[in-house]
Amino acid sequence: MTRPLYARPLLIALLFCTGMPLAAHAATVASVESPGKVLKAELDLSAEGRISYRVQRNGKPVITDSLLGLRLREGAQLFGGFKLTRQASKRVDDTWEQPWGENREVRNHYHELRAEFQESARDLRKMNIVLRVYDDGIGLRYELPEQPKLGKVDILNEFTEFTLVDPQSATAWWIPAGEWNRYEQLYSATPVDQVGIAHTPITVKLGDGTHLAFHEAALVDYSGMWLQRVAPGKFRAALAPNASGAVSRQTPFTTPWRTIQIAPNAGALYQSSNLILNLNEPNKLGDVSWFKPHKYVGVWWGMHLETQTWGVGPNHGATTEYTKKMIDFAAEHGFRGVLVEGWNTGWEHEWFANGWVFDFLKATPDFDLEQLAAYAKSKQVRLIGHHETACAVSHYERQMQAAFDMYAKLGVDAVKTGYVCDAGQIERQDHADGPILREWHDGQWNSNHHLRVVTEAAKRRIAINPHEPIKDTGLRRTYPNWITREGARGMEYNAWGVPPNPPEHEPMLVFTRMLSGPFDFTPGLLSLTGKGGIPIQTTLAKQLALYVVLYSPVQMVADLPEHYAKYPDAFKFIKDVPADWEFTRVPNGEVGDYATIVRKDRNSEDWYLGSVTDEHPRTLQVPLDFLDRGKTYQAQIYRDADDADYRGEKRYAFERDDQNVTAQDTLTVRLAPGGGQAIRFVAPR
Amino acid sequence: MTRPLYARPLLIALLFCTGMPLAAHAATVASVESPGKVLKAELDLSAEGRISYRVQRNGKPVITDSLLGLRLREGAQLFGGFKLTRQASKRVDDTWEQPWGENREVRNHYHELRAEFQESARDLRKMNIVLRVYDDGIGLRYELPEQPKLGKVDILNEFTEFTLVDPQSATAWWIPAGEWNRYEQLYSATPVDQVGIAHTPITVKLGDGTHLAFHEAALVDYSGMWLQRVAPGKFRAALAPNASGAVSRQTPFTTPWRTIQIAPNAGALYQSSNLILNLNEPNKLGDVSWFKPHKYVGVWWGMHLETQTWGVGPNHGATTEYTKKMIDFAAEHGFRGVLVEGWNTGWEHEWFANGWVFDFLKATPDFDLEQLAAYAKSKQVRLIGHHETACAVSHYERQMQAAFDMYAKLGVDAVKTGYVCDAGQIERQDHADGPILREWHDGQWNSNHHLRVVTEAAKRRIAINPHEPIKDTGLRRTYPNWITREGARGMEYNAWGVPPNPPEHEPMLVFTRMLSGPFDFTPGLLSLTGKGGIPIQTTLAKQLALYVVLYSPVQMVADLPEHYAKYPDAFKFIKDVPADWEFTRVPNGEVGDYATIVRKDRNSEDWYLGSVTDEHPRTLQVPLDFLDRGKTYQAQIYRDADDADYRGEKRYAFERDDQNVTAQDTLTVRLAPGGGQAIRFVAPR
Repeated sequence: MTRPLYARPLLIALLFCTGMPLAAHAATVASVESPGKVLKAELDLSAEGRISYRVQRNGKPVITDSLLGLRLREGAQLFGGFKLTRQASKRVDDTWEQPWGENREVRNHYHELRAEFQESARDLRKMNIVLRVYDDGIGLRYELPEQPKLGKVDILNEFTEFTLVDPQSATAWWIPAGEWNRYEQLYSATPVDQVGIAHTPITVKLGDGTHLAFHEAALVDYSGMWLQRVAPGKFRAALAPNASGAVSRQTPFTTPWRTIQIAPNAGALYQSSNLILNLNEPNKLGDVSWFKPHKYVGVWWGMHLETQTWGVGPNHGATTEYTKKMIDFAAEHGFRGVLVEGWNTGWEHEWFANGWVFDFLKATPDFDLEQLAAYAKSKQVRLIGHHETACAVSHYERQMQAAFDMYAKLGVDAVKTGYVCDAGQIERQDHADGPILREWHDGQWNSNHHLRVVTEAAKRRIAINPHEPIKDTGLRRTYPNWITREGARGMEYNAWGVPPNPPEHEPMLVFTRMLSGPFDFTPGLLSLTGKGGIPIQTTLAKQLALYVVLYSPVQMVADLPEHYAKYPDAFKFIKDVPADWEFTRVPNGEVGDYATIVRKDRNSEDWYLGSVTDEHPRTLQVPLDFLDRGKTYQAQIYRDADDADYRGEKRYAFERDDQNVTAQDTLTVRLAPGGGQAIRFVAPR
Repeated sequence: MTRPLYARPLLIALLFCTGMPLAAHAATVASVESPGKVLKAELDLSAEGRISYRVQRNGKPVITDSLLGLRLREGAQLFGGFKLTRQASKRVDDTWEQPWGENREVRNHYHELRAEFQESARDLRKMNIVLRVYDDGIGLRYELPEQPKLGKVDILNEFTEFTLVDPQSATAWWIPAGEWNRYEQLYSATPVDQVGIAHTPITVKLGDGTHLAFHEAALVDYSGMWLQRVAPGKFRAALAPNASGAVSRQTPFTTPWRTIQIAPNAGALYQSSNLILNLNEPNKLGDVSWFKPHKYVGVWWGMHLETQTWGVGPNHGATTEYTKKMIDFAAEHGFRGVLVEGWNTGWEHEWFANGWVFDFLKATPDFDLEQLAAYAKSKQVRLIGHHETACAVSHYERQMQAAFDMYAKLGVDAVKTGYVCDAGQIERQDHADGPILREWHDGQWNSNHHLRVVTEAAKRRIAINPHEPIKDTGLRRTYPNWITREGARGMEYNAWGVPPNPPEHEPMLVFTRMLSGPFDFTPGLLSLTGKGGIPIQTTLAKQLALYVVLYSPVQMVADLPEHYAKYPDAFKFIKDVPADWEFTRVPNGEVGDYATIVRKDRNSEDWYLGSVTDEHPRTLQVPLDFLDRGKTYQAQIYRDADDADYRGEKRYAFERDDQNVTAQDTLTVRLAPGGGQAIRFVAPR
């Protein structure tokens, strides 16, 4: 039985199930508007003291009644029974500089509301909701103050909801969470109400064209947030699992920011991703000028082609001799880095999900690390270190400091790490003879592991580039040596992926994965051919465009030297294009269809343009109003030939034009099916 | 990076995401057909040693490649790397008798396959899959043998999948799991691919008319299974949360049976629910003839109408005087039981989710328990006990044995228990000064609690009827004193529910909730009026039909005596209709639209028919071929009047006809909008 008094909570449950508004049952207790009055967020309190929020854009509801609360392992859930005890607001407008990035200057302009709630009965526990409202998005987090009845807190899950207005007409671009393949899936475009459980960022387009992205910022000492659709148009936060079954914290603490980017179109959505950076803490590392964005080559693609091996043997890639060749190649063309994978012992064993075989201090007999590090330095090149853990994370942590010390001694100042295993198979062993607990790539324990790696590396002036990482939540602002990561389907899938990346993959990434931060996609595969001659579904020009379109402060020059030798004209762009930017603009784009991005070199007056399309050809008009007025630029255009096509041999069809342009001009950019275009705008010297 | 060798598991992940078949990558290693060769189940093993299963009906695939496996807290997941070491099959055909139920005899006719798998490397762990295939459904469970490398097992979750063939054309009837309102929601009918996460049973109708229901049997010492849609047409088991974050077991053990009922139509689906009973262990209690199915009245509806209160006060319901009146009423009309709620101390406090206020041994000052129990017995009536825990479950367990002892001494041989609180708020306290951990109604710990209650009660010959219970998984076969339960929206929602139950609710329940077992719905609300005069959306005749349509071995006569006095003719059916059956048949029905059920009295030659419809009127032809040939029965027909309608005053419009019928006749059953019909077929004496 359920007594009549119970009808009220029930009522709310039902209303939520049927997506009906709470309005009749909740009162607005606080609200905050963005500086430009574009967005407005309101906090409501129901008759049962349940807290919910709503968001409107230009007076039109976008997010409707969405509950807030935390489900605890011990004691009652922090959900209902609250009253508002105090509210405070704050207005912030400052501008900070990224040591490296897509933009040098980032404006952090928001209005903040801190609403303090307390239970009206029982334990009188306190929970604050902090809202930061920008013109192009909001951040919301929980703040649990220190208090007598709430010390150690085990959070089983959150009640945090994100409820769309008018979901019937909304499309979602997403990848499923909870799969064994981590984040490395092709994105699906479905009606919002066909989403099951998704990773963030998840991008949504409403019927009126408004674009939203749901994600989180500053994921520190907490589990990653997945979004589970629980009712039509309604998502609820689902914390990534971890071995203990809960996120464990001690008051006082704050949760990561739950973020909603809200923009009128796809291009503005990409620009609004400064929200994620702004919601992170400022640089904690001080001077990081020792890290210089750069391009790098690697002993890498040969292994994906299976012409070389990671493990020692007749075709071992990481030999002293071959690595010297790569150092020479890098030096000749001005690429700073040379990544070497398979240099250490362990690869010769069955290592997949068996990382205990790896020794991070011991090179293979055919690889002279000291000699090569010195040889590289002598040519103004640096080796890039490599630590594949295969998810034996505790095993790795036991060697990590010594491994970083060794690299630092040799002048290796960037390390690529790896976590190859199924989701939920990160190996945690708290003491040498303890059980091996299984953690998730994005669970609380592993989120802390990544910060242990990044901070240990920073002490030695080493930059970190994790593959099979935890998702990016903007921590590069706080730890600028966390330079880039994988966390999506990269170029490697074109070597052996089934299926390989389709033409829509890159214009999809721009408005989904790239909203979270840099991606070590490893572009520039000019041979356009994977393992055993599989054609890659791209044109030659598109490979060049990727250096501008998919941002990373380190960009791989991924193909083999002998392949670049065949395409000297295209290769020129790869040599020219920088990896660090002054400004970024997005002239046009649609999620999964096409994207054009222009960026200004941080170290010259030149601009660069990258444009990519899916399987459909496009003709795009791009006004050059981003260029300085009164200057004439030489546009060095790398474009698809008129008959280019990602299908078959025509994918190599490529033209190189020069043209003088000014800010008054509008450029017509023609993209072949599966094609792209790259342009360098050379400013007058 | 993900090395080429990794492409294969990846491939599978992708294929599953896109719902493509595994066939090319998995080999069938074992299969089993149902006795009548209707269903066939096959086990496949992929190149990576991942186990999956498929099911076909009459040669046509129904369930396609669906993975199996367990995710563990410690060590590698039991998922992949397996080889088949042994398989054994078994054929069973026996018939057993229910001490009480919808059918006296139940045939248990299946073919069993036990496939034994072992990891080919590392820990060489063993996991068996046991399949039992009936002509109308399958049961599948994991069997973890005792073994050196697998002792204590913490199961974080299952990989168990249920993948529909051709989901595009499939409809699902379901309620969401993970909501604070437990199982008490209105069912939704949606395309399968709009299901988020659902409780079981979940009912699905395929494009070709095949009906399926996914559920589980013998949920013992394990967490309940929710079904989460993870890809088009694909559901994955999601174990209900519990405070420890995992299901903890010691090898050897078996999981509950994961069940799929498969039938050509809705009626056959209802009949196939014997599958759930058959997959449970036989009666462990021995002679349970002391429990007699019966009807009961209660000090109950007045509280829902808010004309009486649970707590002591001027309008307290559970007074000696009022309870005597109810005993007299029950005795006069031959109802065995008198439920009294609010008889004990605690209700006078704020008790919702605060069950620590309840004393299960102490009556309120105005309620003389001993005297009333004796008075009832003197009139061949028994009091029905009541234990509302409000989820303070550990608090209840500390008093439980003494409370049952007291009831047993007084001849109280049935107790209604209650667990009113939000989902995930069951209070567990392992030792007096320990923390209060929060468990779920359907988590492992609370599933064990329910069995502690049922077995303690059985020792004292007391039957148990839990409200806000764990879902039914057929354990009444093993513990026949677990007679019925709530676990869905009952009549009480018509007193104060927002919204109250719609007309489709009961024909929906028949083919969803009722597949799991008896439901203490509490029918017979002849006043057709809720709190403050809210009209109930039903006709008078439909209230009678519910006694046949919604099975329970104890059926409440829920309305107030003064209301029954107004409808003596209709009340006659309520007095006549039994609560224990010899046979059950389903002449017709469609999920959520209408249902006709006929049952034969276990203690006479009479048959009873109940038919209910949603908001639409129906004219149904019912062949009476279930009656004994050569006999003439007097059909006592309780039907909607020709102008009856659930909307407004016409809901009372009701006719009583008599008619002689034989097995050759076909009866035309006319149901008004929101109406029903009840018939007693009186056999010649």
